[in-house]
Amino acid sequence: MRIAQVAPLYEAVPPGAYGGTERVIATLCDGLVSQGHEVTLFAPETSETDAVLESYGEPLRTRFSREELTDLAPHLHLQMLAELYSRQDEFDVVHSHLDIWTYPFTLLAQVPTVLTMHGRLDLDFLRDLLPRYGTVPLVSISDDQRRAVADLDLTWAATVYNGLDLSAYSDVPHDSDGYLGFVGRIAEEKGPLAAIEVARRSGLPLRMAAKVDPLDEVYYEEEVKPHMGHGVDFIGEIEEHEKAKFYAGARATLFPSDWPEPFGLVMIESLAAGTPVIALRRGSVPEVIDDGVTGFICDDVDQMAKAAERIGEIDPDECRRQAARFSAEAMCQGYIEVYEALVRARGSRG
Amino acid sequence: MRIAQVAPLYEAVPPGAYGGTERVIATLCDGLVSQGHEVTLFAPETSETDAVLESYGEPLRTRFSREELTDLAPHLHLQMLAELYSRQDEFDVVHSHLDIWTYPFTLLAQVPTVLTMHGRLDLDFLRDLLPRYGTVPLVSISDDQRRAVADLDLTWAATVYNGLDLSAYSDVPHDSDGYLGFVGRIAEEKGPLAAIEVARRSGLPLRMAAKVDPLDEVYYEEEVKPHMGHGVDFIGEIEEHEKAKFYAGARATLFPSDWPEPFGLVMIESLAAGTPVIALRRGSVPEVIDDGVTGFICDDVDQMAKAAERIGEIDPDECRRQAARFSAEAMCQGYIEVYEALVRARGSRG
Repeated sequence: MRIAQVAPLYEAVPPGAYGGTERVIATLCDGLVSQGHEVTLFAPETSETDAVLESYGEPLRTRFSREELTDLAPHLHLQMLAELYSRQDEFDVVHSHLDIWTYPFTLLAQVPTVLTMHGRLDLDFLRDLLPRYGTVPLVSISDDQRRAVADLDLTWAATVYNGLDLSAYSDVPHDSDGYLGFVGRIAEEKGPLAAIEVARRSGLPLRMAAKVDPLDEVYYEEEVKPHMGHGVDFIGEIEEHEKAKFYAGARATLFPSDWPEPFGLVMIESLAAGTPVIALRRGSVPEVIDDGVTGFICDDVDQMAKAAERIGEIDPDECRRQAARFSAEAMCQGYIEVYEALVRARGSRG
Repeated sequence: MRIAQVAPLYEAVPPGAYGGTERVIATLCDGLVSQGHEVTLFAPETSETDAVLESYGEPLRTRFSREELTDLAPHLHLQMLAELYSRQDEFDVVHSHLDIWTYPFTLLAQVPTVLTMHGRLDLDFLRDLLPRYGTVPLVSISDDQRRAVADLDLTWAATVYNGLDLSAYSDVPHDSDGYLGFVGRIAEEKGPLAAIEVARRSGLPLRMAAKVDPLDEVYYEEEVKPHMGHGVDFIGEIEEHEKAKFYAGARATLFPSDWPEPFGLVMIESLAAGTPVIALRRGSVPEVIDDGVTGFICDDVDQMAKAAERIGEIDPDECRRQAARFSAEAMCQGYIEVYEALVRARGSRG
């Protein structure tokens, strides 16, 4: 199949460090190419891919201020999409990761188009917008993600879980006596304070490998930083190649995210390293974690602290085995089935 | 010609009160229809027009909060444009007043499209965006409006001054002994404090017929309201049918706008009522006002106050005569020439 993949222009594909969506797109493109598909990736010029790259300048985050991006980014994304659709005959299917910005082109294009919804759907304005394009096929990245819009008349093609190249995680030994790990971004909804509280109550050391966005600087300085020390260490953002070692060195990864996380790559990275996950029951968590088998699903900080004390009950090898559900191969297979169904449906329409 | 006109969805066409762009679009549509053209107007459902109305719900300002609009309005505008362009064969020319949101469709459409730039162009992000679509024909509403982007490679089809149905203004007698008038919106850049200062220095009474947007409420309360009284009256927003009497009752209209106003409908409404204009030398002012003939163009508040004392030198009949340059007919003729040139150019391309 000739497949166009459309990425947001903020970060390179894959990104240097933080940027889950861009990493997933990179993995998907390389996986599809390795299976013999002709893939064209529309993305920033610093992207690295086995696909044919249609490059659109340096990543926007490096070129523009936050204010400039608010005004400009929609128009740069629309221009890229318009250029893609003006060449629609070159593709059998368009897979856009720019979701709602792609909608208007589906009214003008003949080529089948599928959108992956990478973000949360529990936003008021989406309840008005999504049904206006109710026939456009959508992919969710967890079943739970659809819940906020379950009453709307939409066309869900599939749930395709995010997948990653997990090979880098397979040969680092898991340390069952290690620290508690926290990976992500320092922001209230990610639950850094809950992670610290779990460490305090369980008496275990905590290492936080986390990015602090400029927007979250004040929150970090005022709310998080004062808790550092006495077994709680902040080591900052880590690069992709440092992740396997960080996860494997943890006896458990804490995932106290307090919002309906549509997926949560942290959980599968942890499982791939043989490290169980202690998570709050939110969003996609029950679909990713097998409670009592690959970690513990908890209702509050108190349960999380108790789970940390029982973490030895979890078999690291079972964590690695279950991580295979979220491999690059599984994700590629999921999307190929979606593309094939779209191409068949188009053929049968004549 | 079969002409599609595309309006923003915030206000009805024409608007109830304040809303210059919507009033101009309404005048243009009716004028084109009266000349025998087939016009289709894409606009809110409460619009009133001689054109065929493709209606898009109640005006957005009445349906959504400011925050909701930030998220939703771009997508509602894009949907309307996509639906229009999916029917492009029904039109000989598309005239969009949604300017930059229309750009992506020009890459996909065959129908000639022209954009009127109704806003200011001296914004940083436009310097990046406009040259990306350098071949799309643009109309400016004054020559001065182009100045901020004069160094960019753009395609200017024409300057077409805004026009209004001025007949309502022709039969109210001008009062040469009246007050000083201020019409517009209470906002710092519109110069309400300068208007008050001019009234104080010249010893003449001032009447301010002005809208206070929720966003400008604090500015009004703290900066403007304390100056009321002692000959300065705030009468609030006035309806369209009250305007002629308000302008005609003024010996002069003050236009102390302190930003590069792309056009300034207030000036032509005033001239149509036989009322000269005392304006700061900004933006389009020197193109609209004939200095010493239909008013005075000033460099500061001091000059404006002196001009107010000399306003008897201006001939009201000459003001009315010059207002004809900004009639509905003149505007329609200007746009018809633009449309015809586009249709001819398309024909010669084959």
